[in-house]
Amino acid sequence: MTFATELSIKINELQYKALPADALYWAKVGILDTVGVTLAGAAEDCTRIALGVTGAGSGPSLVFGHARRIGALDAALVNGTASHALDFDDCNNTLGGHPSAPVLPALFALADDIGTSGKDFIAAYVAGFETECKLSMAVNFYQYTKGWHPTATLGVFGSAAACAHLLKLSVEQTATALSIAASFSSGIKSNFGTMTKPLHVGHCARNGLFAALLARDGFTAGPLAFEHKQGYFEVFNGAGNYDAEKTIPAWANPLDITRPGIAIKSYPCCGSTHPAIDCMLELVHKHKLTPDNVAKIESWTHPRRLEHTNRPDPQSSLDAKFSVQYTLARALKDRTVKIEQFEGDTWKDPATRAILPKIHSTTYTTAQFPADNHFGAEVRVTMTDGRVVSTKTDQALGRSVDKPLPADKLKEKFDNCAARSLSSDNVARLYAAIQDFENAQDVREIAALAAGRGGPKRVAA
Amino acid sequence: MTFATELSIKINELQYKALPADALYWAKVGILDTVGVTLAGAAEDCTRIALGVTGAGSGPSLVFGHARRIGALDAALVNGTASHALDFDDCNNTLGGHPSAPVLPALFALADDIGTSGKDFIAAYVAGFETECKLSMAVNFYQYTKGWHPTATLGVFGSAAACAHLLKLSVEQTATALSIAASFSSGIKSNFGTMTKPLHVGHCARNGLFAALLARDGFTAGPLAFEHKQGYFEVFNGAGNYDAEKTIPAWANPLDITRPGIAIKSYPCCGSTHPAIDCMLELVHKHKLTPDNVAKIESWTHPRRLEHTNRPDPQSSLDAKFSVQYTLARALKDRTVKIEQFEGDTWKDPATRAILPKIHSTTYTTAQFPADNHFGAEVRVTMTDGRVVSTKTDQALGRSVDKPLPADKLKEKFDNCAARSLSSDNVARLYAAIQDFENAQDVREIAALAAGRGGPKRVAA
Repeated sequence: MTFATELSIKINELQYKALPADALYWAKVGILDTVGVTLAGAAEDCTRIALGVTGAGSGPSLVFGHARRIGALDAALVNGTASHALDFDDCNNTLGGHPSAPVLPALFALADDIGTSGKDFIAAYVAGFETECKLSMAVNFYQYTKGWHPTATLGVFGSAAACAHLLKLSVEQTATALSIAASFSSGIKSNFGTMTKPLHVGHCARNGLFAALLARDGFTAGPLAFEHKQGYFEVFNGAGNYDAEKTIPAWANPLDITRPGIAIKSYPCCGSTHPAIDCMLELVHKHKLTPDNVAKIESWTHPRRLEHTNRPDPQSSLDAKFSVQYTLARALKDRTVKIEQFEGDTWKDPATRAILPKIHSTTYTTAQFPADNHFGAEVRVTMTDGRVVSTKTDQALGRSVDKPLPADKLKEKFDNCAARSLSSDNVARLYAAIQDFENAQDVREIAALAAGRGGPKRVAA
Repeated sequence: MTFATELSIKINELQYKALPADALYWAKVGILDTVGVTLAGAAEDCTRIALGVTGAGSGPSLVFGHARRIGALDAALVNGTASHALDFDDCNNTLGGHPSAPVLPALFALADDIGTSGKDFIAAYVAGFETECKLSMAVNFYQYTKGWHPTATLGVFGSAAACAHLLKLSVEQTATALSIAASFSSGIKSNFGTMTKPLHVGHCARNGLFAALLARDGFTAGPLAFEHKQGYFEVFNGAGNYDAEKTIPAWANPLDITRPGIAIKSYPCCGSTHPAIDCMLELVHKHKLTPDNVAKIESWTHPRRLEHTNRPDPQSSLDAKFSVQYTLARALKDRTVKIEQFEGDTWKDPATRAILPKIHSTTYTTAQFPADNHFGAEVRVTMTDGRVVSTKTDQALGRSVDKPLPADKLKEKFDNCAARSLSSDNVARLYAAIQDFENAQDVREIAALAAGRGGPKRVAA
């Protein structure tokens, strides 16, 4: 049996009624958070440009936060780009990336076209989430380290699997969709810190949906797309850098959406900066730190994380999102880290930039954290009066189900995000509808609440 | 200066009025041949399915061979898929793939939207052709051998460069388009022999156009997308497997479209089978070979070519196109190799299959061809009366400018291909219009001649 077939049998077998309660809980958290950040990202330049280029036509699928409907493939691309525009969407430790942004925009776009119940939608989401994460066990973190963007290079399979599930494709058709997706897999990290990063997500969301639709209509692809000597495993990873045997035995054992689960980002910047921000904010509040009483800040993060976040002198707002130094400076100065700090020209803020030279960020050693911990951070602050205060964390708040973001914090984040595109009435109605997602007869009615009136507005910086 | 900027300066500088006469000649050959094979591929299942999935909307850009117009991006995808559907489109030795199919469908789709003169169109085509080929010098044939599909993984840059040229983008915008394209580059060889192979071409044609349009509208991408340690060169090739220094010095020295130039395929199957077919047809006609008087056929081709053409027992019409054994059997039985032999169930033809066990295909050695010749073939036939006849060729007829296909053969191929979608009157008008391409005031008027009436028909097998 081929790898694609084995995986497709698992996808095909996954049913809503067999989902454990915590899977349903986390699926709704993922939907809430992704819808929120998509509405926040709807007004960003990357979304606006992508919509302008692709969305000349009309169709059944809503552009979130806008008053327009376009073709499902284009909507998956535009909403997928919006969902990751602020780099504020959820993460997963197995994937080493963002699990929901590649999947949910594709599912909403497809659901707007064909109609579906809340239960079928959730099952498809969990199937897509599981597919990309369990595939990640076979090929990551080699892909990440090499320079691939796993959210995209694996997310395309999550989108394809989820859409295949919602379309109720056969095992054979699902396998074909996955094989087509193997030829769509793309996205490299040299484009991190630019609009092309969120575009990766929109692109893979669209392409996964495209693969599923092609497979539905009888398209053909190589049955050995994964294990072929010129297939996905060998071409993206190469001999010795993957283990195809890891995927199937790990399937639903447990479901990845329940453990390690969904990590919710509390800050609208690269997740690799979050544990250090948590440490910094803890020290700021505990020791009443201010820019005036701090002489020096030292931070330590994992090498794989510092790789793309060591930006001591950011030159754009997107650059700032990937700068651990900038985010620590903001945490010190503003005592919070929020969307507005990364908008417009706020990255040039003189008071923030004055702090940057005081910050020294480097990689941590096994003396500080166990070798298998990629998610920790330590921050040490030397005050002007000579006092030295420090703290460390093994992972950011919200990073895993063991350290979840409480419901009020989730709602606060959703409200803040959704308010960038919707009236406060609609924000409340949408929040309530998502709380009851599994009882929806037609998901189109929920999605319709995400329609903006005359287009989203950007909040002044 | 970044690699993308250096390359973009070259793209930006290329002008129609500075083109040598042979570049104009070959550009028109490429346009003629690509339009022909696109019209032949318009009725194929892969094209039809791709059109059904993507083309629900309407727009300015013609679907070749059909009576419909859709959005430019969708048209680039559908026509790009059609252009490679029969694997009958032109080749280039520098690229190790198909240079025109990724570029021309994108340009025609864009030209239908914005309008352009024949001269500007030709300059854009030559710029795109040059870009993908000179990039290939830096990264191929490593990509090909590893399992990438260079027509797609490099063609996306050809499409991006050509569209950037036609859009008259600045150097900076062109560099951004190339950097975005680096994140779209995809396509693996495990999907060869299926509908997904021509889809690779449509996908890269679309994505190159998409990258150019995004760059025009202010999208951002990593300036070091090529040479970054997690950029295109390192991720797709890796240290030691590329040489970035080869591209710029080779630019227009000479233009790749003039030398090694455009290879025109005489047979509608994988180019790697062509030299052996030439040998076989020569022997068939010279020695009056028939299935009855042949006991054994031996063929030798280059290892890189035999890799994907060693299919002694093809199981589909697409499989047959990549089977050197099947094509040699057809050459013996039918005394020609033509489209109809790869359509419907003709691959099951009992008389052809009866010949397959007599055919023994293997790789050639340096005793047969110089080590740097990847394009040769030798065929030896043992007749039932004991006679042994053999011949060899260093390259297929039409494979290079040194062994060009004569004009009457080019026209014969175009007529046969275009007749699958157009009336004979329109075939003649389109042929004449392309002969005068450089004097066209508006390329849309030429493209409009490629509109079918009620959709293309498949010729009965």
